[in-house]
Amino acid sequence: MGGDYAPAAVVTGALEAVREAQGRFSVILVGRKEKILEEIGKNGDLAGHEMVREHYSIEPADDVIEMHDSPTAALKSKQNSSIGVGLRLQRDKKADAFVSAGNTGAVLSASTLILGRLKRVGRPTIGALIPTVKSPCLLVDAGANVDCRAKHLLEFALMGSIYVSSMLGKTDPVVGLLNIGEEESKGNTATVEAFGLLKQSKLNFAGNVEGRDLLKGTVDVIVCDGFVGNVLLKFGESVPSFFKAKVSRLAEQSIRQKLIALLARGTLRGVMKELDYQEYGGVPLLGVDGVSVIGHGRSTPKAIKNMIFRAEETAVRQVSSRIAQAILQLPE
Amino acid sequence: MGGDYAPAAVVTGALEAVREAQGRFSVILVGRKEKILEEIGKNGDLAGHEMVREHYSIEPADDVIEMHDSPTAALKSKQNSSIGVGLRLQRDKKADAFVSAGNTGAVLSASTLILGRLKRVGRPTIGALIPTVKSPCLLVDAGANVDCRAKHLLEFALMGSIYVSSMLGKTDPVVGLLNIGEEESKGNTATVEAFGLLKQSKLNFAGNVEGRDLLKGTVDVIVCDGFVGNVLLKFGESVPSFFKAKVSRLAEQSIRQKLIALLARGTLRGVMKELDYQEYGGVPLLGVDGVSVIGHGRSTPKAIKNMIFRAEETAVRQVSSRIAQAILQLPE
Repeated sequence: MGGDYAPAAVVTGALEAVREAQGRFSVILVGRKEKILEEIGKNGDLAGHEMVREHYSIEPADDVIEMHDSPTAALKSKQNSSIGVGLRLQRDKKADAFVSAGNTGAVLSASTLILGRLKRVGRPTIGALIPTVKSPCLLVDAGANVDCRAKHLLEFALMGSIYVSSMLGKTDPVVGLLNIGEEESKGNTATVEAFGLLKQSKLNFAGNVEGRDLLKGTVDVIVCDGFVGNVLLKFGESVPSFFKAKVSRLAEQSIRQKLIALLARGTLRGVMKELDYQEYGGVPLLGVDGVSVIGHGRSTPKAIKNMIFRAEETAVRQVSSRIAQAILQLPE
Repeated sequence: MGGDYAPAAVVTGALEAVREAQGRFSVILVGRKEKILEEIGKNGDLAGHEMVREHYSIEPADDVIEMHDSPTAALKSKQNSSIGVGLRLQRDKKADAFVSAGNTGAVLSASTLILGRLKRVGRPTIGALIPTVKSPCLLVDAGANVDCRAKHLLEFALMGSIYVSSMLGKTDPVVGLLNIGEEESKGNTATVEAFGLLKQSKLNFAGNVEGRDLLKGTVDVIVCDGFVGNVLLKFGESVPSFFKAKVSRLAEQSIRQKLIALLARGTLRGVMKELDYQEYGGVPLLGVDGVSVIGHGRSTPKAIKNMIFRAEETAVRQVSSRIAQAILQLPE
């Protein structure tokens, strides 16, 4: 029921994931039954496909946490929300992973509450894959935690490294600390202290990276406070519309510019695509005892489908238990 | 002597500014005399121009603070640096403004030390004009202060508002607080408290703005901690090279793409230009008793020229004394 285009986009995306998975997994659609059935009806061809029909089911949940609801209040008053019911299915071993494009705060709180934090994890975190000139890089924390202390940044680095090595197959991923200068002494209280912790750790720490390095792909994991991560990610997302607006303004100036803009549209779109969150399909919550993938409120069917595949892979590759083991190695 | 292309770029830019100013102001070139004379020699035509010849002079300063020097140590050991000498000219009323593309930390410290902080200003700040879909907007703090508390953010908002109203002619500029959500309750400790202070102030406060709003031009002043400001600005600067790299990669894929990329080059360059710091010519230091404009290390002659015009205007419009008056209105 979560997300700006729910339940339509969610149902279509889920059915498409099931078809593409060719029986490798099943999806439980959690939410208002009649609404879900209505959307399934609209996807008649897809839902009627034999492979699809056998690999989805519906779990009724009558409450809906809206995008503007206060997470804590909503989780209390709406016990039967699709978020709560969906996560309890996983807690009760009836599901292996949870995916939602709903109220981010509510999904975060409910996941931590219902699945539980892994032992010794101070703050579960979300990591976002961002495009670079080379291969994508994980920005962690992407907005779950603000006012982070050095030890939290160290945890993020560890959890991010494990995610990247498990999911992108990079052995010993290179970790950078987002900072305002290259030198060890640069930064705010948290980053200066975190530099020391990271240097002492067994992680493959490459030192500080600056804002201008984000898109260069020089590191595999970039560690930062969730305030900075959130602002950066949202800024990056807005760059394509800025470009579009500027290019159309130029196109108004002359017929020549207009022709060029028309011709270049495809090229630009190709580049924009990489800055598009939908290609990347949601952000994983790391540090909880299970799998929870959180999508953008504006998730389209394609984004939902990608999130489901991402969630399946996170479960199969046992990211959560790998984190559980590795975190025990950190100094207390 | 400051900046990656100094003194060549600095001398050329300064002479060009003088020529364009048509006698409205003079420039004192501060640094190693023989080096400066050498560069002036290379700009024979420009320097020989009668108007130019009469409007520049040289103030010798033998020490050079390098880009990698530690600001505090360098200011102590290099008493005769071009930064120190130049700022003392202003303190001694022999100059009205100071411009440098040198070591940012050193210019910041020396400006605060030599010009002095304005009364009741806790932390002098730097503001950067960023392009938006509408008119440019001032991001303040752009990197001078980290670990800012709410009262510092309030000061930045006030100083930024005065700069924008004085320099861009906007009466009662709209102020936004950079945050991770629109709601008053969102953010870290500093922004949540700053929201309250800004709401109570006489500033034209529009509430929180998010990363995705930066390029929309919905506000005239965006307030943030210098850590976030620095990371964002450097990230924004790197976007054009990311685009260039991606477009050239697409161009390699087919002759059609190559032709389009060639044709679109001019259009793209037009858009990129706006993301280019050089067009904007340096950032002002606000909250000191005088005028100090700090340029990018990579400042070209054009950037230097723009910085000089910016500095002149800041002096003429008496930004510093307007801030001095306004800050007294803030609750202690």
